[in-house]
Amino acid sequence: MAKNTYMRWRLPLVCLLWEVAMIVLFGVFVRFGAEADAHWEEEKREMNLTSDIENDFYFRYPSFQDVHVMIFVGFGFLMTFLKRYGFGAVGFNFLLAAFGIQWALLMQGWFHSFKDGKIFIGVENLINADFCVGSVCIAFGAILGKTSPIQLLVMTLFQVTLFSVNEYILLNLLHVKDAGGSMTIHTFGAYFGLTVTRVLYRPNLEQSKDKQGSVYHSDLFAMIGTLYLWMYWPSFNSAISDHGDAQHRSAINTYCSLAACVLTTMAFSSMLQKKGKLDMVHIQNATLAGGVAVGTSAEMMLTPYGSLIVGSISGIVSTVGYVYFTPFLESRLHIQDTCGIHNLHAMPGLIGGIVGAITAAAATEDVYGKEGFIKAFDFTGVYQTRTPSVQGGFQAAGIMVSLLMAFVGGAIVGGILKLPIWGDAAAENCFEDGVYWEVPEDEESDVYHMHNPDKPASP
Amino acid sequence: MAKNTYMRWRLPLVCLLWEVAMIVLFGVFVRFGAEADAHWEEEKREMNLTSDIENDFYFRYPSFQDVHVMIFVGFGFLMTFLKRYGFGAVGFNFLLAAFGIQWALLMQGWFHSFKDGKIFIGVENLINADFCVGSVCIAFGAILGKTSPIQLLVMTLFQVTLFSVNEYILLNLLHVKDAGGSMTIHTFGAYFGLTVTRVLYRPNLEQSKDKQGSVYHSDLFAMIGTLYLWMYWPSFNSAISDHGDAQHRSAINTYCSLAACVLTTMAFSSMLQKKGKLDMVHIQNATLAGGVAVGTSAEMMLTPYGSLIVGSISGIVSTVGYVYFTPFLESRLHIQDTCGIHNLHAMPGLIGGIVGAITAAAATEDVYGKEGFIKAFDFTGVYQTRTPSVQGGFQAAGIMVSLLMAFVGGAIVGGILKLPIWGDAAAENCFEDGVYWEVPEDEESDVYHMHNPDKPASP
Amino acid sequence: MAKNTYMRWRLPLVCLLWEVAMIVLFGVFVRFGAEADAHWEEEKREMNLTSDIENDFYFRYPSFQDVHVMIFVGFGFLMTFLKRYGFGAVGFNFLLAAFGIQWALLMQGWFHSFKDGKIFIGVENLINADFCVGSVCIAFGAILGKTSPIQLLVMTLFQVTLFSVNEYILLNLLHVKDAGGSMTIHTFGAYFGLTVTRVLYRPNLEQSKDKQGSVYHSDLFAMIGTLYLWMYWPSFNSAISDHGDAQHRSAINTYCSLAACVLTTMAFSSMLQKKGKLDMVHIQNATLAGGVAVGTSAEMMLTPYGSLIVGSISGIVSTVGYVYFTPFLESRLHIQDTCGIHNLHAMPGLIGGIVGAITAAAATEDVYGKEGFIKAFDFTGVYQTRTPSVQGGFQAAGIMVSLLMAFVGGAIVGGILKLPIWGDAAAENCFEDGVYWEVPEDEESDVYHMHNPDKPASP
Repeated sequence: MAKNTYMRWRLPLVCLLWEVAMIVLFGVFVRFGAEADAHWEEEKREMNLTSDIENDFYFRYPSFQDVHVMIFVGFGFLMTFLKRYGFGAVGFNFLLAAFGIQWALLMQGWFHSFKDGKIFIGVENLINADFCVGSVCIAFGAILGKTSPIQLLVMTLFQVTLFSVNEYILLNLLHVKDAGGSMTIHTFGAYFGLTVTRVLYRPNLEQSKDKQGSVYHSDLFAMIGTLYLWMYWPSFNSAISDHGDAQHRSAINTYCSLAACVLTTMAFSSMLQKKGKLDMVHIQNATLAGGVAVGTSAEMMLTPYGSLIVGSISGIVSTVGYVYFTPFLESRLHIQDTCGIHNLHAMPGLIGGIVGAITAAAATEDVYGKEGFIKAFDFTGVYQTRTPSVQGGFQAAGIMVSLLMAFVGGAIVGGILKLPIWGDAAAENCFEDGVYWEVPEDEESDVYHMHNPDKPASP
Repeated sequence: MAKNTYMRWRLPLVCLLWEVAMIVLFGVFVRFGAEADAHWEEEKREMNLTSDIENDFYFRYPSFQDVHVMIFVGFGFLMTFLKRYGFGAVGFNFLLAAFGIQWALLMQGWFHSFKDGKIFIGVENLINADFCVGSVCIAFGAILGKTSPIQLLVMTLFQVTLFSVNEYILLNLLHVKDAGGSMTIHTFGAYFGLTVTRVLYRPNLEQSKDKQGSVYHSDLFAMIGTLYLWMYWPSFNSAISDHGDAQHRSAINTYCSLAACVLTTMAFSSMLQKKGKLDMVHIQNATLAGGVAVGTSAEMMLTPYGSLIVGSISGIVSTVGYVYFTPFLESRLHIQDTCGIHNLHAMPGLIGGIVGAITAAAATEDVYGKEGFIKAFDFTGVYQTRTPSVQGGFQAAGIMVSLLMAFVGGAIVGGILKLPIWGDAAAENCFEDGVYWEVPEDEESDVYHMHNPDKPASP
Repeated sequence: MAKNTYMRWRLPLVCLLWEVAMIVLFGVFVRFGAEADAHWEEEKREMNLTSDIENDFYFRYPSFQDVHVMIFVGFGFLMTFLKRYGFGAVGFNFLLAAFGIQWALLMQGWFHSFKDGKIFIGVENLINADFCVGSVCIAFGAILGKTSPIQLLVMTLFQVTLFSVNEYILLNLLHVKDAGGSMTIHTFGAYFGLTVTRVLYRPNLEQSKDKQGSVYHSDLFAMIGTLYLWMYWPSFNSAISDHGDAQHRSAINTYCSLAACVLTTMAFSSMLQKKGKLDMVHIQNATLAGGVAVGTSAEMMLTPYGSLIVGSISGIVSTVGYVYFTPFLESRLHIQDTCGIHNLHAMPGLIGGIVGAITAAAATEDVYGKEGFIKAFDFTGVYQTRTPSVQGGFQAAGIMVSLLMAFVGGAIVGGILKLPIWGDAAAENCFEDGVYWEVPEDEESDVYHMHNPDKPASP
C-alpha cells in the first residue's frame, strides 16, 4: 500500500505555524523571572542577599545542562540503535524536543509561574520544560520508526498539554512529591506512548522486520545515549529538589541505584539467554531502570542501601520485560513498542511511584529531624497536619491519576494521529530514513556494487 | 599535479618551535591570578570574603567546561561529516585548538590581564582563550580538507593575534558589549576564513568531488558535534557575562533562540527541496544559527520572545544560505566553503551584531532598572554619560571593524598560506585522510581483498 | 584449543553474589553524610552556615559529573578502537565500574569516613569511588580483549581493595599529597595491570593479530573517549582539592599541561614514522599523558609554564613509548599491553609522582604565603613541623609504595585470574565480541542489494 509521505508543504506549514504561535504567546506572556531580570540588583537588596552566588542559577545550572544533554543526546542517541533510522531517531527527537520545550515553558508557566498576567521564567523553568519534553521522548520510543515528523509534532503539542495538567494535579492538588518524575515523567510518558502505539497498531509491520534490528556500529552509537543518560541521571533526579541536602541526597541515591542496576541487568541478560551471551538491547536500556525507579524517592531518606535494593530489582524487572513481556505485548495485545519503553520506563516508573509512596509513608521525625521532616515533604500551610501515612496514600493516588491520564489521553491522541492526513509511511517503509531524509550513498553498498555483484555476503 | 605533502620534518619542527616559544613566554609572563594563587587566603581577608564559594571558579567553571566541550568535541565532530576526513576534522581541530589556547592566553593576557609586567590568569582567561580559538575553528570550517596541518598552525598563530587586536578595539576602545561573540568570534572568524579560502581558491577541486559528501555513519558522528554545540550554547553566551542576573538571562535567551531555530530550519529544509525531504547538512548546521545570532544581545534584556524571533529568522537565513548562497559563492565568487560557515557563522554573526546594536540602542532605565542599566552596559567612569543610542552606534561600529579586520587580515594570511612551502595536498587528494594520517585497513578495503581471492579472508 | 567461555550460570552468579553482598554491607555500614542528610537544617545552624550554597555539593558536584563522564564514556570509548571489540570495551568497562564504585564506597569509607561504626558519604566519596575505579579501568586497558567478564569482576574486587590500602598508606600514613592521583591512580593502576597481563601472558596471541587493529569508524569512536578524557581532566585533577584557590589552580595547571602535550605528541608521532604521517594511536592516547603527569602537582604552585614543560615532556615520553617500548615489552618481557597503558599511565604516572615530589620539596612560604603554605600541604597537627624537603621525601616514598603494591598485588591477582575456571577465551578468539555478546548481523553482510545485482546503487 503506497502512502503519501510527501512532506514538502505539510511539515513546513506545521513547523512555522507552531513557531509563530509560540512567538505570539511568548510575547504576550513570558518575561524574565526576578533572578534573571536586570532589576536583580534591587531585588537582591530587598531579599537581603549579599552575594550573586545566591542566584538560583548557581544552584541549578550545572544540573540543567546535564538534563539538557540527557534529552537531546541521551534520548536521541539511545534510539539510533536501528540500522537505518539513525537520522530519524536523533533528528526527530531534536525537532520534537525543541518545539516541546517552548510549549512546556508556556503550559507549565501558566500552572506554576503565573503572576499578574505574566509567566516569569528562570533556570528552574528550563529544567521543568526539559523534564516535560522527556516524557514525550519516552513516548516517541514506542512509535519510533512508524510515524511522520508531523505526527510527532502533533503528539508533542497534546502530550505536553496533558503532562502539564497531570503534573498540576499531582504536585498542586494532591501535594505529591515527585522530583525525579517517576510518576509524572516516566509512568505517564510511557503508558501514554504505549496507548498511542496500540491505537496506531500496524498489522503488517513484519514487512519491515529486517530493518528493526541493529548493526554493529549503530549499537555503539546507542551506547553513547545510554551512558549519558546513566551518568547524568543523578543530576536529573536532583535538578529541582530543594537547595542543599535534598539535592545532595538525590544525587547519592540515584548514583547507588544505577550502579546496582547494571549488575542485575548483566546477570539476567546472560541468564535468560540460552547461549549465556549478553544482549546489547538489555545493556542499552535496562541498566537505566534504576534511575527511573528512584525518581520519586531519591530526595527522600531512601538511604544508599535502599537505593541499591530498588536499583537491583528494577534491573531484573526491566531485563525480564525485554525477554518475555515485549514479545507478549506485541503478539497478544498488539502493542508494538519499538524501543521497549514498557520495560525501561513504564514498569520501573510504577516501581518508582510505589517506592516513593512507601518511603513517604514510612517517614518519621526521627529519621528526618524535626525541621527536615517539614521541609522534605513541605508540610506547611494547609498541609501542616498531613501525616506520613496520608502522604503515602496521596502518593499512591498520584500513580493512579498518572495512569488514567496516560490511558485516556493516549487513546484520544492516538485517534487523532490515526487520521490519514499526517503522512506516515506504509508498513514496508517503516524504520527507514529514506522516507523523510536525504540519505547519502552508503559506503558499503557502493563498494559491493561497483565490484562484484555475485559474491556472497561477507565477513 | 603531485605535491610534496611529506610532513616528517616540517610538522614536528613547527609544533616544537611553537611549543618552546610558549614555554619561554609563559615563563616570562604568565602567573596565577589572585583567586588561583596560594596567597588567596590573605587575599580573601583583604577583599572581605567570608566564603571560598565567592571564588570566581565557582561562578564560571561549569560554563568553562561546557565551552571546552564545544570547542573540542563540538567543532571537531561537527566537521566529521565528510566520508574520508574524520581523522583530519577531529584531529587537526584538536591540534590547532590546543596550540591556539596557549597563544590566546598570552595575546589576550597582554591586552586584558597585564599588570606589573605579568599576565595573571584565572578561569575567565581560560574561557576567553577557548572563545578566541573558537574563531579559528570556524575559519577552519571553510578550508577543511584542503590545507596541511602546518598551514593550520600558521593560520592559528596569525588569527589569534588578529582576534585579540580586534577584541581589544571593540571591548576596550569602542566599549562595545559582545559577551557571546557575535562580532568578535563569529563575524570576524567567518569572514576571515572565507577570505582565506578565497585566496587559496582551487580551480580543480571538482577532482575530489566524490569525497566531499558524507556517508550514513559520518552524518551521525557530525550530529554529536551539532548537539553538543546546540546544548551548551547557553553556557557559551553566558560564560563571561556579569555574575548573577546577566549570566542567568544570557542562558535563557540563548535557550529560547536555539529552540526556535530548530523549527524554522526543519521547515525550510523540507520546503526548499523538491522531494520535501530533510537534509542533514541543514540540520547539522543551520539549527545552530540561533546561538550565533543572540551572541551579542543574550545578556541584554532581549526577552524570551525577542529571542524566539531572532532564532526563527536566523534558522531561515542560514538554511536558505545553504541552498542558494553556497553554490553561488563557489561558482561566482570562487569562495569554496567546505562546511558552509557563511551560513552558520557569517550571516548569523552579522544578524547578531545588528540585533545587539538595536537592543542596546533601545535600552531604557525603565526596562533595566536604574542600577541594572548602568551595570548591564558598564556605563561608569568615562562612559558615565554614554546614552543607549550612542552605545548602539558604537555596537554597529564594532561590526564594521570586525569585518575590516577579517577581510584585510584574511587576505594577508591567505597570501602567506599560499606560499608553496606548507605541504598542502593536490586538488585530487583533498578531503582524504590518507595524505596526513596512517589510515587503518578499512572495512571497505577488506571488501576489496575479497576480489583478490588468493589473499586470506579478512577482516 | 577450545575453551569453555559459556557464561550463562557463572556470570549471573558472580554479579548477583557481588550485588547481594553490597546490599548487606551498605545496609550495615553506609549512611548519608551530614550535608546530604535531612538533619542538615540543624547541622547548618550548628556550623553557623547562613546559606545552602555552602553545602559541599555545590563545590564539587560539577567536577564529579565530569569525572563520572571520564570513567564511563572516557575510558569506555577510548577502548573501542578495536575493530570487533567495541561492545566489550564499553560494556565491560560499564560493568566493572558500576560494581567497583560500590565496593570503593565501602573500602574507602572504612578508611576515611568511618565514625561510630558507620560510613557517612557525600559527594566527595562519590568522586573518590570514581577515582578508585579509574585505576581499574586503566588496568583493564592492559588486558582488554583477553579476559572474561568474570575475571574483570574478580580483578575489580581485589584491585579496589588494594587501591584503598595503598591510598590509605600514602594519604594517611605518609601524609602525601596526590589530588589527581598520579601515584594512587595511575602509577598503581598501570603497573598493577601490567603485572596482571604479564602473569596472564598468552604465547599464541598472534592468532588473533588480525583483530587487534582498528577500522576507520572505530578510531572515531575512540576519539570520543580521548576528547572527553582530555577536556574533563582539569576537573579530574581539581575535583577533591581544597575549596577555593586550590581547585582553581589545579584546573589551570592541568589545562596548560594538556595543551602542551598535544603539540609534542603530534610532533613526535609524525617524526617517528618514516612516511611522516600521524598515527591515531598516539593522538588517542599520548595527548592525555599531560593530564596524568600533573596529577600530583596540579594543586601545588607548579605555575602555568611549569605545567607546559611537564606536559611537553610527557607527550614526548608517551609517544616514544608507543613506538619503541610497547613492542619491546611484548617481545622481550612478554607483557602484552593492549591499549599501551605503560605509555599513557605508567610512565607519565611516574613523571607525575616525581614532579610532585620536586614541587613539594621546592615549596617556600614566599611562593605560597604563610597561610597558603600550611593549607596547601596540610602542615597542621603532628605534621606542623614537617619541612618541604621532608615532604618531598615522603612524596618519593609514596611512588615506591605504590609500585610495590602494584607489583605484589598484580602478581597475586594475576595468579588468581590464571585459574582455569573464569571462562576466558582461547587465543584465537581474543578481541572478538562474539564470544560474550550477541552480535548483530553486520552491515556489510546484510546489504540486500547484493543479492539483487540488477538493482541500482542504493541508499
